[in-house]
Amino acid sequence: MDLITIRELYRNKEQYIGKKITVGGWVRSNRDSKTFGFIVLNDGTFFETLQIVYGDKLSNFAEIAKINVGSALIIEGELVATPEAKQPFEIQATDIQVEGNSPSEYPLQKKRHTLEYLRSISHLRPRTNTFQAVFRVRSLIAYAIHKFFQERDFVYVHTPIITGSDAEGAGEMFQVTTLDLNNVPLTEDGKVDYAEDFFGKPTNLTVSGQLNGETYAMAFRNIYTFGPTFRAENSNTTRHAAEFWMIEPEIAFADLKDDMVLAENMIKYIIRYVLENAPEEMNFFNSFIDKGLLERLEHVANSEFGHVTYTEAIDILVKNNDKFDYKVSWGCDLQTEHERYLTEEVFKKPVFVTDYPKDIKAFYMKLNEDNKTVAAMDLLVPGIGEIIGGSQREDDYDKLVQRMEELGLDKEDYDFYLDLRKFGSTRHAGFGLGFERCVMYLTGMGNIRDVIPFPRTVNNCEL
Amino acid sequence: MDLITIRELYRNKEQYIGKKITVGGWVRSNRDSKTFGFIVLNDGTFFETLQIVYGDKLSNFAEIAKINVGSALIIEGELVATPEAKQPFEIQATDIQVEGNSPSEYPLQKKRHTLEYLRSISHLRPRTNTFQAVFRVRSLIAYAIHKFFQERDFVYVHTPIITGSDAEGAGEMFQVTTLDLNNVPLTEDGKVDYAEDFFGKPTNLTVSGQLNGETYAMAFRNIYTFGPTFRAENSNTTRHAAEFWMIEPEIAFADLKDDMVLAENMIKYIIRYVLENAPEEMNFFNSFIDKGLLERLEHVANSEFGHVTYTEAIDILVKNNDKFDYKVSWGCDLQTEHERYLTEEVFKKPVFVTDYPKDIKAFYMKLNEDNKTVAAMDLLVPGIGEIIGGSQREDDYDKLVQRMEELGLDKEDYDFYLDLRKFGSTRHAGFGLGFERCVMYLTGMGNIRDVIPFPRTVNNCEL
Repeated sequence: MDLITIRELYRNKEQYIGKKITVGGWVRSNRDSKTFGFIVLNDGTFFETLQIVYGDKLSNFAEIAKINVGSALIIEGELVATPEAKQPFEIQATDIQVEGNSPSEYPLQKKRHTLEYLRSISHLRPRTNTFQAVFRVRSLIAYAIHKFFQERDFVYVHTPIITGSDAEGAGEMFQVTTLDLNNVPLTEDGKVDYAEDFFGKPTNLTVSGQLNGETYAMAFRNIYTFGPTFRAENSNTTRHAAEFWMIEPEIAFADLKDDMVLAENMIKYIIRYVLENAPEEMNFFNSFIDKGLLERLEHVANSEFGHVTYTEAIDILVKNNDKFDYKVSWGCDLQTEHERYLTEEVFKKPVFVTDYPKDIKAFYMKLNEDNKTVAAMDLLVPGIGEIIGGSQREDDYDKLVQRMEELGLDKEDYDFYLDLRKFGSTRHAGFGLGFERCVMYLTGMGNIRDVIPFPRTVNNCEL
Repeated sequence: MDLITIRELYRNKEQYIGKKITVGGWVRSNRDSKTFGFIVLNDGTFFETLQIVYGDKLSNFAEIAKINVGSALIIEGELVATPEAKQPFEIQATDIQVEGNSPSEYPLQKKRHTLEYLRSISHLRPRTNTFQAVFRVRSLIAYAIHKFFQERDFVYVHTPIITGSDAEGAGEMFQVTTLDLNNVPLTEDGKVDYAEDFFGKPTNLTVSGQLNGETYAMAFRNIYTFGPTFRAENSNTTRHAAEFWMIEPEIAFADLKDDMVLAENMIKYIIRYVLENAPEEMNFFNSFIDKGLLERLEHVANSEFGHVTYTEAIDILVKNNDKFDYKVSWGCDLQTEHERYLTEEVFKKPVFVTDYPKDIKAFYMKLNEDNKTVAAMDLLVPGIGEIIGGSQREDDYDKLVQRMEELGLDKEDYDFYLDLRKFGSTRHAGFGLGFERCVMYLTGMGNIRDVIPFPRTVNNCEL
């Protein structure tokens, strides 16, 4: 169908003023008097709406005058400039066709609905202002991330979703199976007979693509992943979902410094891209969801990120232990309250915390010369705390094996990973960005359930 | 680290000739005589390699002269033009540092390896020419798809991976669970007690994001998905994997014609993007994998796709039934041999087959006025057969319910889907593109296992 989008009208209005055009969209509101009426139309392509004026010359005036919120219409008419009105133009309709009605039980009436209520109708909530803004910005952030890496010739790698191994040894996993749970086949000694399962062995949903990603960084030098990851954690918070997307770049011939430069450039790039490509949506968030959002993001895009070692950070935090529920000391993991204190009160901008104690970090992180800390970094941002976690990887075969032995990891499970240290090993580094955390950060939305189209959490897998 | 990439050298050589530069990469070959030697270096950023000349002035000449294939080096030297040689330039090394050695048991020696053998070392195969080409092109195709849709303001929607429903009622599914299979909890009547499972009910891996995607098309008008999908089919073919990625655009205020225009434009866009951005890789495929590939792709990019109804296609095929293993008649599903005959012999270009019998297509496809066929389309391309399948969706509530009843589908499972026909329904359409099929089509690779980094098939879930 040859319809002009509302986005196109707003972006290039000069081309259309005074012309006869056809648009299609959904009714946001309709008010009529005896001989004419006004419809506010949204067509999903743009955050702003289009006003339609119609009169009783329409053969179906009576029908249109009664048309309900949510109905789908195709409208023909002239686009007329309205310099004295709030909106820049309107359509004076000469023909209105009803594509689909919307009865009065339509769950999205004009009144304001709570986010909780909207969560219960996840198939309809993208029709509201808030979720139009959230999910368009989510889409733009995803694209900005691809664009950032592709412009720098990174290779996008699809690491596997179903996996036979537990990448970080961390996090509860979902099992994937084709066995009949009502009739689980057993081996002679009474254990589950995984030879009967689809892959001939137990398999799970991935918790991270990093180890697979490293194999491709050792071939392509610079790669990134962008795919779904899973945690079967029984935690019901505003920041955790069982299914979420993650971006994991990995760079070879690179150390922790290169890793931080990459992370800083990426965050700034995403912010600038969204501010430039979704100004209407970002203004909406700034006005109705999170006042101060725009100022904060612009500050981040234009500031040089801070750097502090874990040991220095602990020194700062210890002096302020009276402010924290959870008191810190060297060796402890940082909680969100500490992270936010560092980035919001001490540095007042994003800050990288580096060189964490090896005992609170993963086995694959590069051991520093002090033998106590590893070349890890977390990026903390105001309003959120940790948004990125990364590290230089241990590229020395012997040190990596030693660390795995200390932690009781089975070498055989990591043969492929050790091969990377055996054959042409080189310093390399990478990080993980939780995509939904990133969307929350850029939109100001406070609950991860409101930035995922169909969120999956404990006891919740609707649609 | 401040290294120049080989890609940058090839793309902007004028800037670097005569200058001292530093590069890092992996040794593809090394031959030495008594006082000098040549290393062919690949750094993963570019398909072509870089020649390094080194002499016995290097303090570690003896070490370098013995360095094995696969080793990682950092090399400093002057870039010198070599107008009389095969390669455009070389580095005359003044310093070579060994980042990581590669012992003689390195599985990728200079000789040619079979694709079968390389499948057994999926963590190392991206270091070979063939897989460097495959996986860079895979990455570029993924980006071309995002770029195509984002330039047209489509919203990228992440439809869920874990699902409580079976979208198409088609295909064997993988179950996702946190229940202990060695000790499955049972209800009083001896059935699996899914109340104990993570989501409180049985869940599976998605086979399609379409139905969820439609909910977003009815809000944003034009959307696309791009995510992993799963089939637990026990089929060991060169074209099927248990885990693969799919692209599913969905457009509102649009009919089957619009859908076909979109598909045709997308395919042409992808081909042009890859030809433009990976000329070296595409030449390699054309020379060593699939002679005639470039000619075929250029022809597709520049031809207008054909159109034929299923009924017309059957008429053509019936006349040639002697050529087919599987004889056709009206009402039967087309096999690959028929599809390839149509596109390769009859039309000699890509062709859309439309208006299939309703009985061989999914419940959600729009019923044509003949009451026998549906507004479906498959796009057939030379060398492959079907690469895209799509349809206009049934947007009439009553007709959709009737079709569901005919097929014995439970209305309650599709409440959300029926809501789309209740509240502001409008004509809409979409299609699915199997991403790996598309990569095979553009590279000429014959086995789906060779276009997925870590393929998952029956009894195969390595790394």
